[in-house]
Amino acid sequence: MSTASIDRQTIEAMVRNALRQSASPAPRTRSGNPPGWVNGKPNLRVSISARHVHLTDEHVEILFGPGAKLEPEKDLYQDGFYAAKQTVMVVGPRRRMLPSVRVLGPTRPASQVELAFTDSISLGIDAPVRHSGKIDGTPGCVLVGPVGSVQLHQGVIRAARHVHLNDADAEFYGVQNGDMMQLKIVSHECTTIFDDVLVRQDSAAKLEVHIDTDEGNACHLDAASEVQLLKISSGCACKH
Amino acid sequence: MSTASIDRQTIEAMVRNALRQSASPAPRTRSGNPPGWVNGKPNLRVSISARHVHLTDEHVEILFGPGAKLEPEKDLYQDGFYAAKQTVMVVGPRRRMLPSVRVLGPTRPASQVELAFTDSISLGIDAPVRHSGKIDGTPGCVLVGPVGSVQLHQGVIRAARHVHLNDADAEFYGVQNGDMMQLKIVSHECTTIFDDVLVRQDSAAKLEVHIDTDEGNACHLDAASEVQLLKISSGCACKH
Repeated sequence: MSTASIDRQTIEAMVRNALRQSASPAPRTRSGNPPGWVNGKPNLRVSISARHVHLTDEHVEILFGPGAKLEPEKDLYQDGFYAAKQTVMVVGPRRRMLPSVRVLGPTRPASQVELAFTDSISLGIDAPVRHSGKIDGTPGCVLVGPVGSVQLHQGVIRAARHVHLNDADAEFYGVQNGDMMQLKIVSHECTTIFDDVLVRQDSAAKLEVHIDTDEGNACHLDAASEVQLLKISSGCACKH
Repeated sequence: MSTASIDRQTIEAMVRNALRQSASPAPRTRSGNPPGWVNGKPNLRVSISARHVHLTDEHVEILFGPGAKLEPEKDLYQDGFYAAKQTVMVVGPRRRMLPSVRVLGPTRPASQVELAFTDSISLGIDAPVRHSGKIDGTPGCVLVGPVGSVQLHQGVIRAARHVHLNDADAEFYGVQNGDMMQLKIVSHECTTIFDDVLVRQDSAAKLEVHIDTDEGNACHLDAASEVQLLKISSGCACKH
């Protein structure tokens, strides 16, 4: 398993978005499309978030040099967010490391490392499942860039499943910010239902579920024949 | 990610068995315990099968030398099966490889490589989800041992989820060989329901679900608070 191949996979996974039509009820007519809607209805996208790093402005300058800024390389589906050209090395205890982890922009008030469970095992870090930004008491690590390094005292998490959606999406599904939903991925021989999908509502968001690489691999998302996002109280995804 | 750490993880995962009590109906009284039963009822075990290799007698001799036999290192939960002392290197196209993949015994009529999806990505092999032994038309690879190497023309699969159970277990759950069941893993922030769990009934089997490392990581099995094995027609696992 070469360093080069790991990094390419990371980048490939980062930009891979499994776009599928939702198995949604009949479309409603609306005047104008909310963000992400297609033909008058939500357009469910399920994306795999590969391991990545968020940085503060200060840490960007320490890692990449005085005056350095994140440089967008590829836009993410959510408007205003991007995969940066920059990568960092993430070093865990016992000097295990991931050599090249992509930085996502824009910068944030706190730096944060989001790993799949597989990544955290290989790093030797017991990363807890947390929602983005909820990093109190989480483990730290060392980030190494071409110019300098940063000791994070906390911020290494396994990002919990969540769905970004806007107000029209929320109304469509009958959910609100903070609710939990269910995601069903129908795949040959490995259909999987993910509970605990947190609703993150924002008026500018486009409907998109984020799962990590372990979850995407467990259900073979790339080969999925159908994806369904379900309000939990509206019945289960199991068709019983 | 060092070679040494990958191999240790493999071995750790191979021998890790998350033993939990099933959320089963009230126990039935029985005279004598069927294999694996505890206190007169099935004792549900969910195990993560890390990547591994099955070999023919002929391939054992090619890889490890004339007259070589598999040497048991650790018994698996299913009686008569073991992790061998031997490991092989698995080489994919473009010379990507996994340096040390454990061989499981006893030997079989056909050699077979069982990978998680993550492994197959790192090897560059598009391994289909198959049940053990169903290898017609699957990709091959090269196995390298200390003495020789073998070109497998087929046999690389991602092992599909399944549950080993005996006749008493089958009666208890109301299922039979070839049925599909559902496995629910309750974990903080990442509860997951796996469909497509194939029933593999054998009179000598002990009740045990096998999932792969991706699936185990997706639901954080090691931290699970509850596991449930459900007959699909008996209702879903979602408590709706």
